[in-house]
Amino acid sequence: MPTLDSQPNQQQIIQAHERIAPFIHRTPIITSETINKITGAKLYFKCENFQKVGAFKKRGATNAILCLSDEQKAKGVITHSSGNHGQAVALAAKEQGIKATVVMPDNSPAVKFEATKGYGAEVVFCSANIQSRAETVERVIKDTGAHFIHPFNDYDIIAGQATAAKELIEDVTDLEIVLAPIGGGGLMSGTCLSVNYFSPNSKIIGAEPEEVDDAYRSFQSGKIEGNDTTNTIADGLKTPLGDKTFDIIREHVQEIITVNESEIMAALKLAWERMKIIIEPSSAVPLAAILKSKKQFQGSRIGIILTGGNIDLKSVDFT
Amino acid sequence: MPTLDSQPNQQQIIQAHERIAPFIHRTPIITSETINKITGAKLYFKCENFQKVGAFKKRGATNAILCLSDEQKAKGVITHSSGNHGQAVALAAKEQGIKATVVMPDNSPAVKFEATKGYGAEVVFCSANIQSRAETVERVIKDTGAHFIHPFNDYDIIAGQATAAKELIEDVTDLEIVLAPIGGGGLMSGTCLSVNYFSPNSKIIGAEPEEVDDAYRSFQSGKIEGNDTTNTIADGLKTPLGDKTFDIIREHVQEIITVNESEIMAALKLAWERMKIIIEPSSAVPLAAILKSKKQFQGSRIGIILTGGNIDLKSVDFT
Repeated sequence: MPTLDSQPNQQQIIQAHERIAPFIHRTPIITSETINKITGAKLYFKCENFQKVGAFKKRGATNAILCLSDEQKAKGVITHSSGNHGQAVALAAKEQGIKATVVMPDNSPAVKFEATKGYGAEVVFCSANIQSRAETVERVIKDTGAHFIHPFNDYDIIAGQATAAKELIEDVTDLEIVLAPIGGGGLMSGTCLSVNYFSPNSKIIGAEPEEVDDAYRSFQSGKIEGNDTTNTIADGLKTPLGDKTFDIIREHVQEIITVNESEIMAALKLAWERMKIIIEPSSAVPLAAILKSKKQFQGSRIGIILTGGNIDLKSVDFT
Repeated sequence: MPTLDSQPNQQQIIQAHERIAPFIHRTPIITSETINKITGAKLYFKCENFQKVGAFKKRGATNAILCLSDEQKAKGVITHSSGNHGQAVALAAKEQGIKATVVMPDNSPAVKFEATKGYGAEVVFCSANIQSRAETVERVIKDTGAHFIHPFNDYDIIAGQATAAKELIEDVTDLEIVLAPIGGGGLMSGTCLSVNYFSPNSKIIGAEPEEVDDAYRSFQSGKIEGNDTTNTIADGLKTPLGDKTFDIIREHVQEIITVNESEIMAALKLAWERMKIIIEPSSAVPLAAILKSKKQFQGSRIGIILTGGNIDLKSVDFT
């Protein structure tokens, strides 16, 4: 099975879904009468917080690993991530009996180190800067020949992440709008493709923290913009776009709504209190966008992809 | 439809379930591979945190109200509760278009007052002691003729609460053990009856905080014991048993396991972190009991009723 070298077509997303199905949960859709009342819309939340490793990342990582040749598998895989992607690669590799190395900044929280180790990966530390990360990854690849799995700018990853929106569309008919948050753009670009193929009449809207509004600015300027600072609680959304994800997002996303930190916290609290589920702050960003721009969403049937539920409970302060 | 004046039989629980079905959610059962691995057992969690008003109490309150005569309904209902039962009676009354009065201590948290008002009940404050509460309830009954709905020591309430275990048994075959926490005993006695009627080979085990181990002591002494202090985070379990609930529990419960506060907090954290759901501390007590007494549960198929998910997020400190 060769890895994809162009944007996944409809058939390739269907194949990716069949390929990963034994290794992922088909996560439930949750609705909340109270939140529907507050927003005046009908919201359908796709609960990737209940996914394996607690995040949608398991989909893409599994697909990327299953697409490797036997020769590639024999040499193992490597990625850099202190978060959900690292854990997803670790578990997906373990399931297929292949070796995974995860490069992680040496200031990563111990709990993330433990979780990644717990899924059987070898963790290699780097200094907390991009140069050290790149050098460390290069060194391991030179020593082992491991295959690098990018967290988002990779068509196999994108095809895997696309399966979340595919399931959402299969489970909820006639969605008028589909929302997802934008970080590196792996989830959003996959969502774009699935909506385009399987629910072409639905609008696609992205949501982003004001503090890391690089996708919003990229969308305006037509080229990939970075972030000077990344002071957001939505730690999954700090990464700028890649060229592959940006091309897809630019073509299909109709609007990007940005929200500030207190809007994110209010949406997070609402989800925890009313839906009784633990979601991570990145997951609350689309809900915050709907609460902020109620008028434009009123009366609509809206699908929202909740990215995950991995959060250090000690870090949350609702006071 | 007359209210029940003796322990609900099998047919009466089936009828109660049919009666309330349009007004409750059939809540999902959740499992966690990680928690199964930690406990060495197969745990099936009945998620009443996803129930209307966020707690199983909606079942009993709805059944009790639907069992009233038209004459009784015309005069409205009254209860005392600063928690889930008050909100459940408020919403169930509103759904049937009848008036509800909820007597609440004047030191109740504002959020509970708001929630109960929000479901359309009239809130009447009393002083924070049992005598004032009783006098206030009596006064309202004298003035209005409202029907009093006891939070647990009432066979219609018990029949309603029994439907949670009935659904659990219908959805998960061959449960060897069913666990629920014990407060006033409404949930536990209902659980006892459903297990007895619908899964008679399953063991029934109760769980209780050490700090309010009145049921454990009542179980030993054969008479209803009280609590001198109630210093537990599991605020739904502070109430002593009633005679109706105690009789049922004494007949069917095989064991009561008590757990300390740090065991409850550890189980609560485990459920939030690994199952990605918000449950209230009372819900964590049976899981704490299993974690404490791992050996006796090892290898078993166990159903656990999660009571609800109503918690002041500001009050939880996992540090």
